[in-house]
Amino acid sequence: MIVQTPLKLSCQDVSSLLDEIFPQLLEGGKSYFVDWIKPGETQMRLVADQRHLRPGGTVSGPALMALADVSAYVIILATLGPVALAVTTSLNINFMAKPGPGDILGHCKVMKFGKRLVVVEVDIFAENQTELVAHATATYSIPPV
Amino acid sequence: MIVQTPLKLSCQDVSSLLDEIFPQLLEGGKSYFVDWIKPGETQMRLVADQRHLRPGGTVSGPALMALADVSAYVIILATLGPVALAVTTSLNINFMAKPGPGDILGHCKVMKFGKRLVVVEVDIFAENQTELVAHATATYSIPPV
Amino acid sequence: MIVQTPLKLSCQDVSSLLDEIFPQLLEGGKSYFVDWIKPGETQMRLVADQRHLRPGGTVSGPALMALADVSAYVIILATLGPVALAVTTSLNINFMAKPGPGDILGHCKVMKFGKRLVVVEVDIFAENQTELVAHATATYSIPPV
Amino acid sequence: MIVQTPLKLSCQDVSSLLDEIFPQLLEGGKSYFVDWIKPGETQMRLVADQRHLRPGGTVSGPALMALADVSAYVIILATLGPVALAVTTSLNINFMAKPGPGDILGHCKVMKFGKRLVVVEVDIFAENQTELVAHATATYSIPPV
Repeated sequence: MIVQTPLKLSCQDVSSLLDEIFPQLLEGGKSYFVDWIKPGETQMRLVADQRHLRPGGTVSGPALMALADVSAYVIILATLGPVALAVTTSLNINFMAKPGPGDILGHCKVMKFGKRLVVVEVDIFAENQTELVAHATATYSIPPV
Repeated sequence: MIVQTPLKLSCQDVSSLLDEIFPQLLEGGKSYFVDWIKPGETQMRLVADQRHLRPGGTVSGPALMALADVSAYVIILATLGPVALAVTTSLNINFMAKPGPGDILGHCKVMKFGKRLVVVEVDIFAENQTELVAHATATYSIPPV
Repeated sequence: MIVQTPLKLSCQDVSSLLDEIFPQLLEGGKSYFVDWIKPGETQMRLVADQRHLRPGGTVSGPALMALADVSAYVIILATLGPVALAVTTSLNINFMAKPGPGDILGHCKVMKFGKRLVVVEVDIFAENQTELVAHATATYSIPPV
Repeated sequence: MIVQTPLKLSCQDVSSLLDEIFPQLLEGGKSYFVDWIKPGETQMRLVADQRHLRPGGTVSGPALMALADVSAYVIILATLGPVALAVTTSLNINFMAKPGPGDILGHCKVMKFGKRLVVVEVDIFAENQTELVAHATATYSIPPV
């Protein structure tokens, strides 16, 4: 039940905008990448390095929360274009497993795309594994034009 | 209604352990500091710099989520000592205002300290301001000894 | 850090309106009561009977969620007056203890009262006990006038 | 990514147990029904009547939260059998649309089935409609045997 609103920007457009808008994401080396974007869906990739680990050698909660948050930002940006900055109003995440080795993927699906609020869910898993590492839902406020 | 379980570690002990356990938090310069710890409570400080900002110059959601998560980790560590690593099982955060200038504080209060689960809430605000920037609740699983 | 917006309606006004707007809450006998209302705060009381119990004789999760939701509705109604119907957009609840005998109280505090969104937190506990039974946060959308 | 743990009880077994364990759900006339159960999945049906409505004639938030909570309880009961009572530890719900006419369905999917914690998500929608009415995630604690 993905809300398939049409896209205004391509995956490449959004990637370039993201580097420009969020130079912080590039600091210490780029680690969040947009794999693909479809109407109402996107997949992002976290190429985890030392900065994203926590004790035990697993990817940290904040790194996974950032993956969820950025993937939602990406699908909203791709849908609305660079007119307004969506603001996260709430985020809920359940952590279910420690990720195995490899990149971490965040598959973000739009559940509602309203005029004022967008609601998404994000499945987070290690590449080539089916077990969920984490699952997030998040709500974004769209400022009035 | 803070659950005032006695402390095993001092603020200084926990700060040292944190730097050792989470060297990632030091990368690019230390920015998360433990202000104080009391039974069932701690306050952490985020000295925000470029790395923690998002478009519009405000502190990013992931930086605030990390503040909430680390402050919970700190009070659990101070209460149980360095015997077991608590694991975040869920985190919920509401973002309410863009922080004004200055450091960001996270005041973490234990709502439940069970044998298996710890539940905390965290008030996040800019220093010298009363308005809440964000509010988080989070749940941690304590591994069996 | 309670947002103390002034009240338009008294506790008695709100109670009467609630009975009128939500006749469902009266069905099978009235069980949700408004104890008091102050700017940015209200306390509601659930006089639990058979209908609100779950296996083990404890008050059910849905009865506690209803207490949180109705208490938020009450403080918004008291603040804005009966002009518009606030709509719950999200609710998060942590259950921490099985309530002991006696009435269940829900103490609702406004964390943000914006033009479009209201965010509250609700402490839920058994009367005469200090231990938290549950803690909820919830977000409400205020329709444009 | 549904965790397909094998079932110990059939749909009919669970329905009978539910009526016995939760006689409260029958009060005023039965309104929550188990449509079907598969490994890691169940669908429940809320036949909404006056008791479940809120102002504006739409199904109330607490009725939808109860649907989510009971559907999770059902799949855990079907998977573990009637040995232990799972306890809800947290529930998060986003409300996205007012349901149209007809029964309300809750499609519950297991995301994690651990020894201590079970995590589910529940899609809630009106029958014959594809738009999501609400989406919940919830966590349950399994008592030690």
